[in-house]
Amino acid sequence: MFETLAVVGATGAVGRIVLDQLADRDFPYKRIKLLASQRSVGREVQVKDQTVKIELLAPGAFQDVDLVIASTPDEVSADFAPYAVKEGAVVVDESGFWRMDPTVPLIIPEVNPQAIAGHQGILASPNCSTTQMVVALAPLHQACRVKRVVVSTYQATSGAGLAGNVELESSVRAHLDGGANQPETFQYPIGFNLIPQIGGEKHQGYTSEEMKMVYETRKILGDEDIQVCPTAVRVPVMTGHSESILVETEEPISVEKAIELFNAAPGITVVDDLDRKQYPMPKDCVGKDDVFVGRIRADISGNGHGIAFWCVSDNLRKGAATNAVQIAELLQSSVASA
Amino acid sequence: MFETLAVVGATGAVGRIVLDQLADRDFPYKRIKLLASQRSVGREVQVKDQTVKIELLAPGAFQDVDLVIASTPDEVSADFAPYAVKEGAVVVDESGFWRMDPTVPLIIPEVNPQAIAGHQGILASPNCSTTQMVVALAPLHQACRVKRVVVSTYQATSGAGLAGNVELESSVRAHLDGGANQPETFQYPIGFNLIPQIGGEKHQGYTSEEMKMVYETRKILGDEDIQVCPTAVRVPVMTGHSESILVETEEPISVEKAIELFNAAPGITVVDDLDRKQYPMPKDCVGKDDVFVGRIRADISGNGHGIAFWCVSDNLRKGAATNAVQIAELLQSSVASA
Repeated sequence: MFETLAVVGATGAVGRIVLDQLADRDFPYKRIKLLASQRSVGREVQVKDQTVKIELLAPGAFQDVDLVIASTPDEVSADFAPYAVKEGAVVVDESGFWRMDPTVPLIIPEVNPQAIAGHQGILASPNCSTTQMVVALAPLHQACRVKRVVVSTYQATSGAGLAGNVELESSVRAHLDGGANQPETFQYPIGFNLIPQIGGEKHQGYTSEEMKMVYETRKILGDEDIQVCPTAVRVPVMTGHSESILVETEEPISVEKAIELFNAAPGITVVDDLDRKQYPMPKDCVGKDDVFVGRIRADISGNGHGIAFWCVSDNLRKGAATNAVQIAELLQSSVASA
Repeated sequence: MFETLAVVGATGAVGRIVLDQLADRDFPYKRIKLLASQRSVGREVQVKDQTVKIELLAPGAFQDVDLVIASTPDEVSADFAPYAVKEGAVVVDESGFWRMDPTVPLIIPEVNPQAIAGHQGILASPNCSTTQMVVALAPLHQACRVKRVVVSTYQATSGAGLAGNVELESSVRAHLDGGANQPETFQYPIGFNLIPQIGGEKHQGYTSEEMKMVYETRKILGDEDIQVCPTAVRVPVMTGHSESILVETEEPISVEKAIELFNAAPGITVVDDLDRKQYPMPKDCVGKDDVFVGRIRADISGNGHGIAFWCVSDNLRKGAATNAVQIAELLQSSVASA
């Protein structure tokens, strides 16, 4: 068992859910520390029946820590993870900083649990838009080999943290009242609008968010030949990322086969009955841990090797907190069985 | 000149803009009639400096009418268009009913003006989500031949008429106030949500809205070999449809070439500078007549024959009213030159 657990960034949108998930899933530990920047030090947070004071994230803080679950910006993770590991902790990191490091396993427990073997102290949880897509792609890849993915995202404002939702609400209220509000978290007003940019330019006109979906997908599925054409768009939805996905496979794939594969896969719930108006929607996926797929149909522009579908998941849960806690559980069971 | 003009459905979301466009574009006529169902008869509408009383849409109403611009539900158009033609009028119809009729030209004036020749009294304006896509595809098709299109839409609530926007506003307000509202226009609450269904099931798991984008695109571009895989999604935006489009061409196509083609094409405005956060967004396209394209980039999942881009247009203008008035102008100039 990991005796002492540290949660870094516990007061953020994802960190709060990490604490909930640790409680809900009865993750075993003896002692919990909450670490954050100077700004939050001394704040008290309720963790199950304990009141825990936030301590400073700084060298030395991990001397007595076995396992860390961290939800911080990239630059914070770049700074603290090395000394946390040096001080003897294993770090499950939700930031983008370590994901493509060749020494860092990038894990979705339902998809590539074997990749935790040989970790060197840091394990990364994928980007939210990647995670839900790869959970859905994995069974198709295993059965029919995914060659190409065309994906357009509809990403919720909570992907930018609590501030994203606050800004959506104020932007919507300002619009309804005939006023205007100055965007701070997003590039432009997001209320009743769409912003087709998440992250800065990274590669040939694609944003950093889009390229995460290319690189991380290949790493998690262990196949550098998978081609991905992503378009990442911010939408005025608070929680729940949605994705319109077209997948082309090496082996031919039927709709029936795809549904069978989705139904048999862990972490996927199929909601698919167009006649009865059944399909995944953000409002129905908030607070749930699964990846929901629907609108599953043949690619009518293709040659029998393609499937189109619609995929929704709670970006704060499977897209972040839940996946990180699942990685911790995986580490826990590998420690237990060692 | 068409001496007497009739506008059918003038009090609807699109009809109001038809009247504005007729005024703004100085469409020439001597007399205007407004026709609607019994419910609206007698209401007065301001048309330029005249106050016009709405008259009943019924057989006989078109005896003195030369040209009709109609924005009505499909079933209304199915009923009135035949007798309007029999009474001697030419009908420019925005409903979906006549579009795929082989005797009815389906027109985007920038794309296929020649198709008005030989009309038999009814001319159709395409579906809003088709129109903006085809305006953007047309120059690429002419230069490099479009083989395949993968499109995911982000469609505004005004696509469902004035009631759509009223429902978005009440849904958003109910959500912010912690309440709930009963959806009537849409299948589910649309505030802070997405609905991946527009229209009923039409073909192999695709909705009627999606199949319009398949069939109408082929008809307008005059190429039955174009393959389209569409996903149509309703988003909580009032006006301005957006589309994430991947196009594959027979000839290789570079980003530079695509931008050059878009820039040279009528009716298209390129807004494309990711580094300076310049791309089309619904909020910037409301009340404008052009189709706006941006995020133009190579399909990194393809073989040099593909371009990905983002396309936004005011669904009530180019997607409906503006295109219909442009068709009327085309008829006007063909009458004038005959």
